[in-house]
Amino acid sequence: MKYPPALQMAIDRLSRLPTVGPKTAERFAFYLLRRPANEIQDLATALLDLHQNLTHCQRCCAIAAANPCSLCTDATRNTALLCVVAETKDMIALENSGQYQGRYHILNGTISAIQADNLDHLTIKQLLQQLRRPEIKELILAFNPDVEGETTALYLAKLLSTSNISITRLARGLPAGASLDYADPMTLSHALHNRSRIK
Amino acid sequence: MKYPPALQMAIDRLSRLPTVGPKTAERFAFYLLRRPANEIQDLATALLDLHQNLTHCQRCCAIAAANPCSLCTDATRNTALLCVVAETKDMIALENSGQYQGRYHILNGTISAIQADNLDHLTIKQLLQQLRRPEIKELILAFNPDVEGETTALYLAKLLSTSNISITRLARGLPAGASLDYADPMTLSHALHNRSRIK
Repeated sequence: MKYPPALQMAIDRLSRLPTVGPKTAERFAFYLLRRPANEIQDLATALLDLHQNLTHCQRCCAIAAANPCSLCTDATRNTALLCVVAETKDMIALENSGQYQGRYHILNGTISAIQADNLDHLTIKQLLQQLRRPEIKELILAFNPDVEGETTALYLAKLLSTSNISITRLARGLPAGASLDYADPMTLSHALHNRSRIK
Repeated sequence: MKYPPALQMAIDRLSRLPTVGPKTAERFAFYLLRRPANEIQDLATALLDLHQNLTHCQRCCAIAAANPCSLCTDATRNTALLCVVAETKDMIALENSGQYQGRYHILNGTISAIQADNLDHLTIKQLLQQLRRPEIKELILAFNPDVEGETTALYLAKLLSTSNISITRLARGLPAGASLDYADPMTLSHALHNRSRIK
């Protein structure tokens, strides 16, 4: 015996979400059943609005409410800096640090070492388009410090080797609040090599 | 900086689901953004249908497509047996075992030892209503073997102490595939006390 069709359908649809299995989907469905109808209505509307009220900024390729997005049209940003990130959420993380005043480009992914041929999903063409603006002096590569991130950074550095733009990447070292005795050898190695003078 | 309003709203709504925090909700939202619009439409419709196409069976209090539900109106079931479970999903689990042919009553929860006064959410009145049917000979209490389940079973047993209906509960012992050396002392104690003769 299965659940009534409407309940089973909701469980099936919810279990397609990443990391959600049938048991978790069941839990979601029973939770929603206990909530007032207008709360489910609000959730459904919010999901539908995802496609209806969001677009991609043609310039920086971020997921945004408008095209071009508010960051690309913000005249107070430092147009000499362009920071390349893999995903829109990486841009939000950098913005929340409050330490960066330049503009962004969202690459829409990174290059996987095992599927290095397929770069169609990446917004490299739009990045080259952005780099045609003469005011850009520095390109900051801000990818995750993993194999894919490294591969992507190296690929872009090679691609732009003939340009006059300075290319940098985020510093490697100990994160805030780390314990030396729990840090992995790679992190310690970076922390040692990139040590900075304090006096 | 936060996400565009439509994205932030979807993340907020999704993070109300049980066990879902802001990071998981973000993951769900980005996953849905990458899916075709009709897939989100299907999910939204399935969620709305939860309230629109489901009801509670007035007799057994199960979440069902019709009232009375298909189980309560199924003439092939053994009407001498009534099995009380806490939730509709417990009924589905028992049904999937294929070993029970009687009817059910869903109590809509169990009695918590620390909130023993508040029994308003339980369908005890409807259970007493069901028990007025003279054909019922046995009431099977099928709650989880935990403190709440025990409390509820004892409460119902006391409430029905003057009735002529036989009251039973699910057997305690080793689950299928268990290892004796990993079983907890309580389970082993039940397994010993309720040992069965094989010869």
